Amino acid sequence: MPCDLIAALDIGGTKIAGALVDGNGTPVVRARRATPAREDGATVMREVAAVLREMTATEDWARVAAVGIGSAGPVDASVGTVSPVNIPGWRDFPLVAGVREITGELPVTLVGDGVAMTAAEHWQGAARGRTGALCMVVSTGVGGGLVLGGRVHPGPTGNAGHIGHISVDLDGDPCPCGSRGCVERIASGPNIARRALDGGWRPGPDGDTTAEAVAVAARAGDPVAQGSFARAAQALAAGIAATAALVEIEIAVVGGGVAGAGEVLFAPLRRALRSYATLSYVQRLEVVPAQMGTDAGLVGAAAVAAQERGLDRFRAPRPEGRGLLRESR
Amino acid sequence: MPCDLIAALDIGGTKIAGALVDGNGTPVVRARRATPAREDGATVMREVAAVLREMTATEDWARVAAVGIGSAGPVDASVGTVSPVNIPGWRDFPLVAGVREITGELPVTLVGDGVAMTAAEHWQGAARGRTGALCMVVSTGVGGGLVLGGRVHPGPTGNAGHIGHISVDLDGDPCPCGSRGCVERIASGPNIARRALDGGWRPGPDGDTTAEAVAVAARAGDPVAQGSFARAAQALAAGIAATAALVEIEIAVVGGGVAGAGEVLFAPLRRALRSYATLSYVQRLEVVPAQMGTDAGLVGAAAVAAQERGLDRFRAPRPEGRGLLRESR
Repeated sequence: MPCDLIAALDIGGTKIAGALVDGNGTPVVRARRATPAREDGATVMREVAAVLREMTATEDWARVAAVGIGSAGPVDASVGTVSPVNIPGWRDFPLVAGVREITGELPVTLVGDGVAMTAAEHWQGAARGRTGALCMVVSTGVGGGLVLGGRVHPGPTGNAGHIGHISVDLDGDPCPCGSRGCVERIASGPNIARRALDGGWRPGPDGDTTAEAVAVAARAGDPVAQGSFARAAQALAAGIAATAALVEIEIAVVGGGVAGAGEVLFAPLRRALRSYATLSYVQRLEVVPAQMGTDAGLVGAAAVAAQERGLDRFRAPRPEGRGLLRESR
Repeated sequence: MPCDLIAALDIGGTKIAGALVDGNGTPVVRARRATPAREDGATVMREVAAVLREMTATEDWARVAAVGIGSAGPVDASVGTVSPVNIPGWRDFPLVAGVREITGELPVTLVGDGVAMTAAEHWQGAARGRTGALCMVVSTGVGGGLVLGGRVHPGPTGNAGHIGHISVDLDGDPCPCGSRGCVERIASGPNIARRALDGGWRPGPDGDTTAEAVAVAARAGDPVAQGSFARAAQALAAGIAATAALVEIEIAVVGGGVAGAGEVLFAPLRRALRSYATLSYVQRLEVVPAQMGTDAGLVGAAAVAAQERGLDRFRAPRPEGRGLLRESR
C-alpha cells in the first residue's frame, strides 16, 4: 500500500472539516461536523474525534503518511496546543495529543489557519511557484501566512504571517488584541461596515449592514462607502508594504469575504501600495485575489504537513511551472 | 594551503573597510580607505579596489575561500549592484562585477549592511544561538536584518529586515523614502533631536543638538528630552512587535549610536513593547543591546558569505551554545 495521502483537518469556529488529500491536492475522502463552539473543550474535541474516525474507518486510511492540522488561532505548534479566539472552550487545549490518540504513530503538524491557506495558495493557487509571498484572508478578522525562500514559513509556533495584528497606526484605535491601530482594526469586514455607518452610510430596505452591503453601495458610487473601503485598503497597503520591506515578497494574495468586493477593494489597494511600497526592492510587488476555494484550509494543511515531513510529491511546483507534481513530469 | 579565510568588505558613506576573517571571527589582515562619497562612481570603486589589492598582496590571500560584501543600501544582490543613499555616485553600480575583476573565481556574496550586522550578532553577539531574531541599528538612519529558522535571511535582493522603512503611522509625517510615518522618520537620531528642539528643549553651552545631547538631558530629567526618546521608543516597539507577529522572533537586538543612550531608550522601549506585542506568541520577546563593536560589518559580511556557501566552520553556534566553531568542540 503506498503512503500517498495526507490526513488534513481544518478547524474553525463554525465547522470541523477533514479530508484525505492526495498528491494532486484532491480530497479523496471527506468528513465534516459543525463546531459546538459554545460548548466545553471536551465536547469540541469529541467532534474532532468523530471527523477523524470517519476517515480512519475507510480503506484509504492505510495510505496515510502524515496528519496536517490547520486551526483557528492562536495556536502553539511548539507544544501542540490551540486557543482559538472563536472557540472559548479551547484555551491551551492539547489538540495534537487528542488527535494522536486516534491517529497513533503518524507524524502530526499543526499550524494556524492563515498558514494553511498560504500553503494552499502556494501549492496550487495564486502564489504558485513564488519564492516570497504573503497570503492573507480579509474577512471577520484578518489573518495570513508567508512563503519565504520558496517554502511556507510557519514559524516556531505556527502563527507567522499574522498581518492582522501588526500596528500601522501607533496612536490609533484600541484593538481587542490589546494593541492599537492594527490592520484588522481598520480593514476587517465589521470595521469597514462600522466606519461606513459612522460616516452616514445607511443600508437599503433589507437592513443589511455587512461589508458586502457597503461594497454594493461603493460600487454604485456612494462616497462614504467608497471612503470606508479606501481606508481599509490604506491599512492593508501599509501592512503589505511593511511585510515586503521586512522579508522581501514578490506577491501579496488577498482572499476572504472582503476581498470578494473585487475592484472596490483592489483598485484603492493597488493605489495605496504605490504610496507605501517605495523602497527599490519592493516596488514591483504584485497584489492579486486568492484563487483557492473553500478547500484551501484542508489542502493547505496537507501541504504544510508534507513540507515539514519532506514528502516530495506534495511540494510546490518549481518557479518554471513544470507541473504540479514532481512525479508527473 | 587550507581555504579557511573569508575576504570581507564593509562599505559605508565614510569608510571602506576590508579584512580577511578567520573561523573565529578574527580579522587577520586589515585594509581601510576613506570613502570619496562625493566623487563619481569610478573613483569610489578605485578605493574599493585599493582595499582589495592590499589584501590580495598578502600571503594569507591564498587561504581565502569566498568574498563577502556588506554595503550601505539599498543593494540588489540578485544582479550584484548597489545604490547607497549616502554615495550618490553609485546608482545601480555593478559592485560585484568590479570586485570580481580583482578576486577572480572566488564566490562573492553581497548583502545590505543591516543584514551583515545581523549575521555578526547571530554568530558572536547578542543573538547567538537564537532561532528567530531581529537585529537593528538605530543611528542617523534605522536599518536591520533577520534571523529565521536559525539562519540569516538576506532575502533575494539582500535587503530583508529593513525595519527603518515600515510605516507604523499610516497618516504620519512624509518620509524621504516617499512613504509616511516610517520607523526611521520617528526614531532616528536626527528625528529625536528635531522633535526635542521642536518641543522647546535647548542645548547646553556647547551648542550640541545631537541625539546624544538629548539623551544627556533626558538622563538629567528634562521631560521634553525624555518625551522625544519615549516617542522614538514607541515607534521602535510598534515596528519590533510587527516583525514578531509577522515572522516570529524571540529577541530584538538594538545597536547604533541612539542605542548608546542606554536605559533612556531601552526602558521606554520595553514598556511600549508590552503595549504593542500582545499576541500570545510574541509576549516573551526580549529586547537587548547589541554586543558587536566596530568590526560587526566585516565579521558579519564574512558570516553571510560562509552561510551562503555552506562553509561549516563559520556557522552560528547551535542553541545549546556548545562553542563557536564546530571544529573547536
